[in-house]
Amino acid sequence: MKSDLDTFMAADNLNALLITGAGMHNPAMVYLTGGAHLTQADLIVKKGQKPVLFHGAMERDEAAKSGLPTRTYSNYPYGELLKTANGDPYLARALRYQRMFNDVGVTSGKVALYGRVDIGQGFAIISALQKLMPEIEFLGGANDDVLFNARYTKDAVEIERIRQMGKVTTEVVGLTADFLSSQPIKESRLCRPDGQPWTIGDVKKRINLWLAERGAENPEDTIFAIGHDSGVPHSSGNPADILQLGQTIVFDIYPCEMGGGYFYDFTRTWCLGFAPDEAQKLYDQVRSVYQQLVKELKVNAPFKNYQQLTCELFESVGHPTILSSPDTEVGYVHSIGHGVGLNIHERPFSGSDSSDKDILSPGTVITIEPGLYYPEQGMGVRLEDTYWVNPEGKIEILADFPMDLVLPVRI
Amino acid sequence: MKSDLDTFMAADNLNALLITGAGMHNPAMVYLTGGAHLTQADLIVKKGQKPVLFHGAMERDEAAKSGLPTRTYSNYPYGELLKTANGDPYLARALRYQRMFNDVGVTSGKVALYGRVDIGQGFAIISALQKLMPEIEFLGGANDDVLFNARYTKDAVEIERIRQMGKVTTEVVGLTADFLSSQPIKESRLCRPDGQPWTIGDVKKRINLWLAERGAENPEDTIFAIGHDSGVPHSSGNPADILQLGQTIVFDIYPCEMGGGYFYDFTRTWCLGFAPDEAQKLYDQVRSVYQQLVKELKVNAPFKNYQQLTCELFESVGHPTILSSPDTEVGYVHSIGHGVGLNIHERPFSGSDSSDKDILSPGTVITIEPGLYYPEQGMGVRLEDTYWVNPEGKIEILADFPMDLVLPVRI
Repeated sequence: MKSDLDTFMAADNLNALLITGAGMHNPAMVYLTGGAHLTQADLIVKKGQKPVLFHGAMERDEAAKSGLPTRTYSNYPYGELLKTANGDPYLARALRYQRMFNDVGVTSGKVALYGRVDIGQGFAIISALQKLMPEIEFLGGANDDVLFNARYTKDAVEIERIRQMGKVTTEVVGLTADFLSSQPIKESRLCRPDGQPWTIGDVKKRINLWLAERGAENPEDTIFAIGHDSGVPHSSGNPADILQLGQTIVFDIYPCEMGGGYFYDFTRTWCLGFAPDEAQKLYDQVRSVYQQLVKELKVNAPFKNYQQLTCELFESVGHPTILSSPDTEVGYVHSIGHGVGLNIHERPFSGSDSSDKDILSPGTVITIEPGLYYPEQGMGVRLEDTYWVNPEGKIEILADFPMDLVLPVRI
Repeated sequence: MKSDLDTFMAADNLNALLITGAGMHNPAMVYLTGGAHLTQADLIVKKGQKPVLFHGAMERDEAAKSGLPTRTYSNYPYGELLKTANGDPYLARALRYQRMFNDVGVTSGKVALYGRVDIGQGFAIISALQKLMPEIEFLGGANDDVLFNARYTKDAVEIERIRQMGKVTTEVVGLTADFLSSQPIKESRLCRPDGQPWTIGDVKKRINLWLAERGAENPEDTIFAIGHDSGVPHSSGNPADILQLGQTIVFDIYPCEMGGGYFYDFTRTWCLGFAPDEAQKLYDQVRSVYQQLVKELKVNAPFKNYQQLTCELFESVGHPTILSSPDTEVGYVHSIGHGVGLNIHERPFSGSDSSDKDILSPGTVITIEPGLYYPEQGMGVRLEDTYWVNPEGKIEILADFPMDLVLPVRI
C-alpha cells in the first residue's frame, strides 16, 4: 500500500524515485498524483519527504489538484539548457533533471525509475543523466521493486474504486446480455429489425457507449470473439463476424476509470439460444475447475500453486495444458490469473515462471480465469472474476454476475 | 511518409529499428503494424527488409492481422532464459532480444529505439542488452530521427483518417452546441428541466458518449473550462463548475481513433447567451490574429516564424507574450501550433526553441491555435483548427466549423 512506500524505500536503500511521463494513462504517476491532466510531468519522491511534482507552467492548476508541492519547468529555461547542451535535446533534458535533483536535495545514492515514456528518448536522456550524475545510481523499477511492492496490495480507497469499476463492468455485461436477448433471429443469426445481421463490431460499439455513459473507458479494447476466435484466448474478435446461434462467444471486458485509473477484469462465455453438446461439456469442465479453484484459494498461498492445480485438473479430464506441453495451442494455454490495479496485468502473477514472492497477501486483487480453447473446433470457454483478499484473509469476489452459458434469445 | 523509411535509414546509417510495447496506444507500433490488439510486442525493422513482429503465442491471430511476418516469443522459452540469467528478469529479457536480433540477422551497426514502455524496465533491459551486444549501438529515437522524420509527413491514407477524425470532432462539437443551446436557463445558469444546474462534468460525459458512438476515444481528456479556468490554457475544467451565461468557455477537443490511432485537434471559445465587452474584445483580437496567420501560412516556411509573428501581432495590440516576457502567465503564453498524427503533439513544432528543420512541408498536418489568457479577469480565448499542407503546397483546413463566440441559449 501507498503507506508502505517509505518503509520499502528504506529497506531497499533507495534515496529517491523518479516518475516521469504524462499525468494520465501512466500507472506510476496516477498512483502518486491521483491522475492529473498533465501532458508531461516529473515526480521526484525523496525518501521521507513529500513528493515534488514538476510540470509545465500552463498546467499549474492541474498540477495543484494533486495536493503535492509543485514546481514549474520554467524554473529551468529550456532555451538556455539547449544552448549549454550544444543543441542536443537529450542532454538538455538531462541537464534539467540534474538541476531538479539538486533542487530537491537528491545528489547521490540509488534512484529508481518509473513511468511510461518513449523508450528511445527515455534511454537517451537517462544515459546522459547517468554520466552527468555518476554519484547517483539509476535503477530500473523492477516488478519486485518498491513501487510495485507498494502497489501489490491495495488500501480501502483503492478497493472501493476497483469494486465500483466491477459494478460498471457487470452493468455493461448485463446490458449486453439484454440487448442480445431482445433481438430478432433470422436464419439462426441475430438480426436487426430490418433483417440485416448484427456484427461483433456493432456490439462492441454499444459496449463502448455503455462504458462511456458510466464514466469508464477501455483503452485496451474488449474481447468479444465468436466461434474460431473464441478459441484463441487473446483474439479480440473480428468486427465483421455475425452472431450465429449456438457458437461460443468469449466476452472478456476490462475497462478502467476515465483517464487511466483502476481496472476491473471479467469474462463470461455465452452461446446464443442453445449450446451444442461439445460446448456444454467444455463449459462444464471450466466451470467445475473455476469452482474448485475458488474453494481452494488461501491467503498468503503462492499464486502459482493454483496454476499448477489448474493444469492438473484439466489434464485429469484429458486436456493438454502448458504444464506437460509448454507449446500447446489447444486445451489450457495461459495462466490462471494476475493482479489487477492501475495496470490490467500486474503483480501477483501466477505463471509457472512467476516469483515465489507472488502470494495472495491481504490487500491483493486478483483474477481467477480458467479456460479451454479449441480454435479448429470453433470453440473456446473462459470464465473470469476479480477477487480481493481482505484484511482478515478472506477471499471475496468484487462483483457478482450469473455464469450461465446459454443466453436465451427471442423465439 | 512510411515510404521514405528505408531512404531515411540509409541516410542515417541505421541498420535497424526496434519498436517495443503494446500494440495499441503506442504510436510507433501503431504506425508500422496498423494497431493490433497485442499486450506486448516487438517489431524489428531491418534496413531493406520487411519488419518482423514478435508477439505472444496467444495473440497470434491479432499479430497476423498486421500483414507482417510474425514470430512468437515461445521460440525463446522464458523459463530457460531466466535460468541463464540467474533469475534476473531484465537480463532474461535482454537475452531474448539478443536471440531475436540474431534471428533476423542484426548483429552490428546502429539500432534506433522506439515505443512506449515503462522507463525503469526499458532502461534496465536496454542497458543489459547493450552489454550483451557491444557491437550494436543502441540509440534514442530523437524527434529528428528516422521514424519521426517519416511520420513528419503524411500520405493520402493518413490524411483521410485524420480528416475523418475531424468530421467526428466537429460533429461532436455541433452536438455539444445544440445541447447547450436547448437547455432551460434559471438565474443566468444553464439548467436541467428540473431546475438543477448542469455542470462541466455532465457536459464532458456527453462528449465522451458522442465520441464513443462514433468509434472515437479521447485518451487525453477534453478541455471544457469556464471563467477563471478558461484563462489557464491547459486547465481541463472543473467538473463541478456550473455553466454561467456570459463567461468564456474554452472547448479544446482532441480525440483519436479507437485503440490509439490518428488524432484531430480543435478549439472553440464560447460565451453562452451573450459576451461581455472585454470577452468580445479579446475574442476579436484572437480571431483577427488567427485570420492573419492563416493568410500568411506558406509551404516550406519554418513553423516558428509564425510563433514570432503571433507574438508581434499580440504585442502590437498591447498584450504581453512569451516573446518579450518569457515567464508571463497572462496574454499569449504558448506556441502557435504543432503537428498532429498518431501523437496529439508531434513535429513540426513551432515554439521559439523548435528546430529550423520544422517547416511546413507538403504532407504536414498542423494546428493553428492563437489564444489570450487572463485568469484573474476570469477569461480566456483560444481558436484552433487543424490544417494540412497538400502535395501542391496549398494549406487546407481539414474540418470546417463556425467560429462564433456567442452561443445562443433558450430565452
